[in-house]
Amino acid sequence: MDKLAVGIDVGGTNIVAALVAADGQIAEQWTRATGAARGPEAVMDDMAEMVDELRGRLKIAVDDIIGLGIGTPGPLSHRDGVIHRSANLPGWKDVHIRRGMLERTGLPTILDNDANIAAFGEYWAGAGKQARDVVAMTLGTGLGMGVITNGEILRGHFENAGEFGHTIVEMGGRECPCGQRGCLEQYCSPGNIAKYALERIQQGEASSLSDLVGKGEALTSRDIVDAAQAGDAFALEVWDEACRYLGVACVNIQHCFNPQILVLAGGMTKAGDYLLSRVTHHHKHHCWNLMDDAPEIRISALGNDAGVIGAAGLAWAARNSGVIA
Amino acid sequence: MDKLAVGIDVGGTNIVAALVAADGQIAEQWTRATGAARGPEAVMDDMAEMVDELRGRLKIAVDDIIGLGIGTPGPLSHRDGVIHRSANLPGWKDVHIRRGMLERTGLPTILDNDANIAAFGEYWAGAGKQARDVVAMTLGTGLGMGVITNGEILRGHFENAGEFGHTIVEMGGRECPCGQRGCLEQYCSPGNIAKYALERIQQGEASSLSDLVGKGEALTSRDIVDAAQAGDAFALEVWDEACRYLGVACVNIQHCFNPQILVLAGGMTKAGDYLLSRVTHHHKHHCWNLMDDAPEIRISALGNDAGVIGAAGLAWAARNSGVIA
Repeated sequence: MDKLAVGIDVGGTNIVAALVAADGQIAEQWTRATGAARGPEAVMDDMAEMVDELRGRLKIAVDDIIGLGIGTPGPLSHRDGVIHRSANLPGWKDVHIRRGMLERTGLPTILDNDANIAAFGEYWAGAGKQARDVVAMTLGTGLGMGVITNGEILRGHFENAGEFGHTIVEMGGRECPCGQRGCLEQYCSPGNIAKYALERIQQGEASSLSDLVGKGEALTSRDIVDAAQAGDAFALEVWDEACRYLGVACVNIQHCFNPQILVLAGGMTKAGDYLLSRVTHHHKHHCWNLMDDAPEIRISALGNDAGVIGAAGLAWAARNSGVIA
Repeated sequence: MDKLAVGIDVGGTNIVAALVAADGQIAEQWTRATGAARGPEAVMDDMAEMVDELRGRLKIAVDDIIGLGIGTPGPLSHRDGVIHRSANLPGWKDVHIRRGMLERTGLPTILDNDANIAAFGEYWAGAGKQARDVVAMTLGTGLGMGVITNGEILRGHFENAGEFGHTIVEMGGRECPCGQRGCLEQYCSPGNIAKYALERIQQGEASSLSDLVGKGEALTSRDIVDAAQAGDAFALEVWDEACRYLGVACVNIQHCFNPQILVLAGGMTKAGDYLLSRVTHHHKHHCWNLMDDAPEIRISALGNDAGVIGAAGLAWAARNSGVIA
C-alpha cells in the first residue's frame, strides 16, 4: 500500500479532510460542517473521526499514514502548533491543535494558516508546480497571501510574513479595520470592491446594479463582473480600478519576493480571463523595464482543493526533510 | 592560527578588502581605488594582490583562509558567480568573478550584491546579531535592501528579491529612471530628497538652503538635515516627508517580511536619532494594531564596514553549511 498523508482545511463553515498521495493527488475526501461554536475539543474530536472514516473507506492502516497537516484561519503559530485566535472560529483562544490532534490520532501534526497551506498546495501540486519561488494571492473575502521562497514557506520572526493585504498603497487612504489607512485590501479584495461599489450606488451612481441593490440583495464582486461584462459603465470602471490595484500589487510582489510564478486564487478567480488578462495588462503597464524579472501570473490550478492538498503537502515536506519520522 | 575569511566590497570608487575572523571581527583591512575603467581583469588582479598583501601583513598561510566573499553592485547572479552589468562599473558585462578569483587565489569564492552583503553583515555581526529574521534598508544614494529570513538571504527566482526601493507607493506618482512611476525610492532616498528639494528652491521656495544653491553647490540630504535642525521650515517639511515615507516603508516591510530587527544603514544614518526617532514615530503612527509584530528599528552597527564584514560572513556561512570545504 502506498503511503498517504492527511490534509485538513478548517474554515469557519466547513472542514474538508482528504487523504493525499505523495504526488499531490487526492485519494479520498470528506467535508463536514465545522460547528466552531461547540468549541475546539468537539471540533478536534470530529477531525479525528474524519481521519478514521477516510482510513476506513480506503481500508488502510494507521501505519500507512505518514502525518497530518492542518490549515486554519489565524493568527496562529506554526512553530508551537497553536491557534492564538481567529475571526472565523469564535471563542477559540490559544488552542493547542498540534498536541490535541497528536493525542487523538497518534499522527505527527503540522499546523499552518489557510493562506500558507493554499500557497503551498499550488507550489507543490498546482499552478506553481516545478517552480521553487511561488507567491499565491488568495482573493476570497479579504486578500490573503502565502510566499514560497526556495521551496520554503516564508514565515518571519512573528510568523506573520506575507500579510500583503495590509501593505499601504494609498497613504492617508481608506480606513481599514486593522487600524491602518490605505491598505491594499481596501482597494481590491472582493469584499471591499463590492462594499465601495455599493456605497457609490447608494449615493446615486447610475448603474444596472442599482436594481439588485434596490431589491435589498447583497452586492458581490461576482455581480460587478457580470454587470461589467454586460457593458455597465460603472461596473466596468469599478472592475478596472480593482484590477489596476491588483496589477500594481503584482509589481510590488515581484520586487519584494521575486517569484517565478504568481498565482491568483480564491472566489474572485471565477472571473477567469476577465480577471487574469486585466491584472496582467496593469502589471505590464506599471512595471519597470530595468530587467526582465516579471513572474508569470496564473490562475489557481487547484481551486478550493488547494488548502487541503497543501496541508497534506506540508506533512509530506516535513517527512521528506526528516522533521517527522 | 585561527582561520580567517576574506571579504571584499567593490564599489564604483573604492575596493575594501579585509580578513575577518569567525566572530565577525576585522583582523586586517585595506582600501584601494577601484579603477573600474581598466576592466574586470585588471581589477581582479588587484583584488588577488590585496588578498596576498593582507595575508603577508598577518603572516598567515593560504591554508588558513577558508574562502572569499565578494560584494559588488548588480545586477548579478550569486548562483552563477557572474556580474551581469553595473551602473558603477562601466563596461563590465557578464564578468565571471567567482571563476576569475578562484583561478587567481585558489580560494572558494562567493559573489553577492552590495545590498545583500551589507544586510548579511548586520545580521551576522551587527545590529541584527542573534536574530534570524533581519531586513537592512541602505539609504546611500538610492534605497537598497537586503532581506535575511530564517538565517538565509532571500533571493527569489531571478535573484532580484528585496528591490524594495522600486515598490510603488504613489500610483501615477514621480517618474523613476527604472520606467515606473511612484517608486518608494523617489520619495525618501537621499539622492531624491535632495533632488526634489533643489527643484522647489529653484522654483522660489523660501529657505536658508537657497544660499547654498545660489553658490552653485550640490545639495545633499545632509544639508537638509542641517537646515532642518537649525529650524528652517522648508527643510523641516522636506525631512519630515521623507521620514513619513520611510515610516510607511517600515510598515510594509513588517507585513511583507516580518523581521525581528529592521536596520537602517547608509550615509543618511549619519543623522542618527534625528532620522531614527522620526522614522519610528511615523512607523508607529501608520501601523496596524491587530497584533504586536512590529520589528525593532535600529541604526546600523557596522557602518561602512557592513559590506566587507558581510562578504566575509557569506564565506563563513558557506563553510559552516558545507557549501565550501
